[in-house]
Amino acid sequence: MQETAEGDMSAFAMSNKFRIGLIQLMVSSAKLENLNRATKLVKEAAEQKAKVVVLPECFNSPYGTKFFPEYAEKIPGETSQVLSEAAKECGIYLVGGSIPEEDGGKLYNTCMVFGPDGSLLLKHRKIHLFNIDVPGKIRFQESETLSPGSSYSVFDTPFCRIGVGICYDLRFAELAQIYTQKGCHLLVYPGAFNMTTGPAHWELLQRGRAIDNQVYVATASPARDEKASYVAWGHSTVVSPWGDVLAKAGSEETIVYADIDMQHLTDVRQQIPLHTQKRHDLYKVTAIQEG
Amino acid sequence: MQETAEGDMSAFAMSNKFRIGLIQLMVSSAKLENLNRATKLVKEAAEQKAKVVVLPECFNSPYGTKFFPEYAEKIPGETSQVLSEAAKECGIYLVGGSIPEEDGGKLYNTCMVFGPDGSLLLKHRKIHLFNIDVPGKIRFQESETLSPGSSYSVFDTPFCRIGVGICYDLRFAELAQIYTQKGCHLLVYPGAFNMTTGPAHWELLQRGRAIDNQVYVATASPARDEKASYVAWGHSTVVSPWGDVLAKAGSEETIVYADIDMQHLTDVRQQIPLHTQKRHDLYKVTAIQEG
Repeated sequence: MQETAEGDMSAFAMSNKFRIGLIQLMVSSAKLENLNRATKLVKEAAEQKAKVVVLPECFNSPYGTKFFPEYAEKIPGETSQVLSEAAKECGIYLVGGSIPEEDGGKLYNTCMVFGPDGSLLLKHRKIHLFNIDVPGKIRFQESETLSPGSSYSVFDTPFCRIGVGICYDLRFAELAQIYTQKGCHLLVYPGAFNMTTGPAHWELLQRGRAIDNQVYVATASPARDEKASYVAWGHSTVVSPWGDVLAKAGSEETIVYADIDMQHLTDVRQQIPLHTQKRHDLYKVTAIQEG
Repeated sequence: MQETAEGDMSAFAMSNKFRIGLIQLMVSSAKLENLNRATKLVKEAAEQKAKVVVLPECFNSPYGTKFFPEYAEKIPGETSQVLSEAAKECGIYLVGGSIPEEDGGKLYNTCMVFGPDGSLLLKHRKIHLFNIDVPGKIRFQESETLSPGSSYSVFDTPFCRIGVGICYDLRFAELAQIYTQKGCHLLVYPGAFNMTTGPAHWELLQRGRAIDNQVYVATASPARDEKASYVAWGHSTVVSPWGDVLAKAGSEETIVYADIDMQHLTDVRQQIPLHTQKRHDLYKVTAIQEG
């Protein structure tokens, strides 16, 4: 991939469509191996003309509270350097899944987004920590080691404005509503649902966010590793503003591609004009603060 | 059915469960026939121990802007009288689907709710009028003849608090969010989706509202009449707070039953405690006014 970012962007700014690639990485306990495989797959996605590429949640570390302190890095650090270089080399927007981040003695579950020039566009620290307890099925308490972020995370591309959440953030309709109010047309959630909540809610939540807000929704999960302490559901997905599943992985390591079409989004919003029909005299959804 | 309302209620107040019955009525152009069939099916549902019974949207009239002026009634009027008597005779809460209502020279799409003593508990006038245009598929503009309501509609039963919307109201997440904030554990939407939006969105919207708010959701549609000018999708449904479809009709005239279990709702909210995890420091959903 030797295309320049500028060359790509100007070409695609003329079009209503762009391709997204979701890297469903098989994450191991070897950080360097994770970084190398992630980089290789990001390049493969870019070769397939993806202009926005998304890595999964916790892609450089096993997912688990006991792993977070060991794998945590500062930003900038080893992983941010690798992602920045990959984004620049490929001339893409890279939504860097998430990594355990250490800052000021606290740990966060953090997504970095890099532009096609390799610059860090934003850092999203997971706002809603994953604390659930379904007896006999799944118990997980991120708050045992992590602190939550408090920022909305939106970035612009020549194609559309994109909002970023991480995994459990997907459950909170308000975040998607506010991103939509901010003009996002695509919401991206690196996430690692599990074998209980995955089959029950993963796709449903994405499709719900998509039709309620008439936006595209994309998720990138780690591939399923049955031997891991936390078994990810997989099924990285792209959903259209009409609620259709455009592309969906199984459980294996793979790359999911879909073409995001801004004209389709415009059409859906004209056909079912929710945005002009909202009863602003009766209710409102407000962002109270911005980080 | 000679059970008294009080007898029923005290028995059920001891329990965490109650039965809901959804009347998927085959609506014709003969108003009296519609009222008679509706009454018959309401009584059948009550005999099957349903304590909350729901009729479909526009159950006494064909659905269509040209029919609304002709079929519209004042409240109180013929239909309200029939519903009140049925609720009282059966000792049930009757969510009376909707009818075209005339008031002060304006027409509304209005749901009346009656208590087990036959009293009118509330009137919900559809807040969001159904104006959509999917080329070649479905065009409908309720606002050609109807005016919108501007009230939230919540009523209490010994089992739980219930919020009411009508059909297109279901598409607006904010209404369900506000009902949930008001303490509703069951949202009821009489509705008549069509052969385009029905397969695409009817169940998805219900399941989305259910898991986002961790409430029960119930919908009652008219049965499908392929010869009608507006063909209803049918598929009256009950969804659990976990997002499971508990019961669902096909397209034919039928009654759908499900047992609503407040303990299950409590369990779901403990397992995935969204309500305590919301970031009230970052966002809020507010009701601006109440009618």
